[in-house]
Amino acid sequence: MTYTPPKVWKNTASGGQFANINRPEAGPTHDKDLPVGEHPYQLYSLATPNGVKVTVLFEELIEAGHDFDYDAWLINIGEGDQFGSGFVEVNPNSKIPALMDRSGTEPVRIFESAAIMLHMAEKHDAFLGDSRREMLSWLFWQMGSAPFLGGGFGHFYAYAPEKFEYPINRYAMEAKRQLDVLDRHLADSEWMAGSYSIADMAIWSWYGQLVLGRLYDAAEFLDVASYTNVVDWAERIDARPAVRRGRMVNRSFGDDESLKLPERHSRADFDR
Amino acid sequence: MTYTPPKVWKNTASGGQFANINRPEAGPTHDKDLPVGEHPYQLYSLATPNGVKVTVLFEELIEAGHDFDYDAWLINIGEGDQFGSGFVEVNPNSKIPALMDRSGTEPVRIFESAAIMLHMAEKHDAFLGDSRREMLSWLFWQMGSAPFLGGGFGHFYAYAPEKFEYPINRYAMEAKRQLDVLDRHLADSEWMAGSYSIADMAIWSWYGQLVLGRLYDAAEFLDVASYTNVVDWAERIDARPAVRRGRMVNRSFGDDESLKLPERHSRADFDR
Repeated sequence: MTYTPPKVWKNTASGGQFANINRPEAGPTHDKDLPVGEHPYQLYSLATPNGVKVTVLFEELIEAGHDFDYDAWLINIGEGDQFGSGFVEVNPNSKIPALMDRSGTEPVRIFESAAIMLHMAEKHDAFLGDSRREMLSWLFWQMGSAPFLGGGFGHFYAYAPEKFEYPINRYAMEAKRQLDVLDRHLADSEWMAGSYSIADMAIWSWYGQLVLGRLYDAAEFLDVASYTNVVDWAERIDARPAVRRGRMVNRSFGDDESLKLPERHSRADFDR
Repeated sequence: MTYTPPKVWKNTASGGQFANINRPEAGPTHDKDLPVGEHPYQLYSLATPNGVKVTVLFEELIEAGHDFDYDAWLINIGEGDQFGSGFVEVNPNSKIPALMDRSGTEPVRIFESAAIMLHMAEKHDAFLGDSRREMLSWLFWQMGSAPFLGGGFGHFYAYAPEKFEYPINRYAMEAKRQLDVLDRHLADSEWMAGSYSIADMAIWSWYGQLVLGRLYDAAEFLDVASYTNVVDWAERIDARPAVRRGRMVNRSFGDDESLKLPERHSRADFDR
């Protein structure tokens, strides 16, 4: 039975996991202020791949001796926290992560995970890679590619109300192509841009965690083990202490209780 | 009839327009060098929204008096030019646009449209907006959002072999949400980041051209006219002479012959 779209789209409940957080409008749904802690950086996030990117960078900067600290507050997207008025002021796109930088004279916002990473890395002149061009190319590659992995493959393989064959095939093919892009680059490069940088952290959070078997229960389906250079690189990054701490921050879900740290307000929080 | 994915994904022809250019592997399919012209910047592109972003910026920089010039070469993605060995060396991701910057001592590559834009805007200290944080937030917003509009909505509404109801609904809802994000921002801001910047150019190339009725024949379906602030902003940008020139560069398709300039090697090329 062939579907014919109407002349003008109408909102219909589509079902599937997370369907309740998809809306055709932007803007707040309710009034709610955000909490503010004592540190110069206030992060509002959740330990999804886009959230982990940023907390890994924060923890790497602190590990490397940069002198600052941050508060990380949990945004429960399943309960619609991202549509609260305070959050929408920090990120009008209602997605995690979002940052208020209170280190200057006026508190200022910055949103989109890679924008936050570039802002923080430039501010501390750290983790910018050996070549700015290569770092920017790969950082933007991650931002333009991961929607096909997360919003495409992950959605249709793991979360959609039915297993739709055409979208699963479409996005599995693209996910595998992207893994192969990385595998070929990492065949003769230890890192994405000469030295360990925000490009590695951003790409690791999606593709590294994918090959480590942490996303969508799709390791066998995508035959991730065949991308051996990506696996080696992912394991190297995964072994870093700051990366483990970054994975813990704003984590409120999953089976591994030892990884859960829903809020982070000081380095001591990791030693509970 | 419910589809059950196999244990391990296998490549199956999926059909639909552009299906022939989708592959599960990266890397070159054939040996082919890229042409090199006389100018310091060699752009390899096509006038899709991701290509137009960059040519609009090049033409705006020249219009503003920055003293440089560029060659723009056509990459015919329908014929697989992006899989030639020379192109893959410039962009291992096999997507347009890709740039060789030969302005320094060594020719160097940069790929991903927004990375090229940031590289060129920083180099000329132009079109960076009034706030770097806001510019970066919106530039990265475009890169993370447009895959839902292009690879998601556009694919399923215009190019897939069948009209699949669930994906069309999913991506139409998201496209409308994104338009509303922009509409609310532009309600009290003339530009995305204080003054006309690469964030406007990048977002215009996708969402501006969408509300101007140029993408996917979807203006009525998405009711784009209701996003009045986006329409006003899009028309302001569309009226700029450099933007019209940017739309022409590397255009080899479409009904409007007056817009077609498949290759560009000097400013005089626009005066044919």
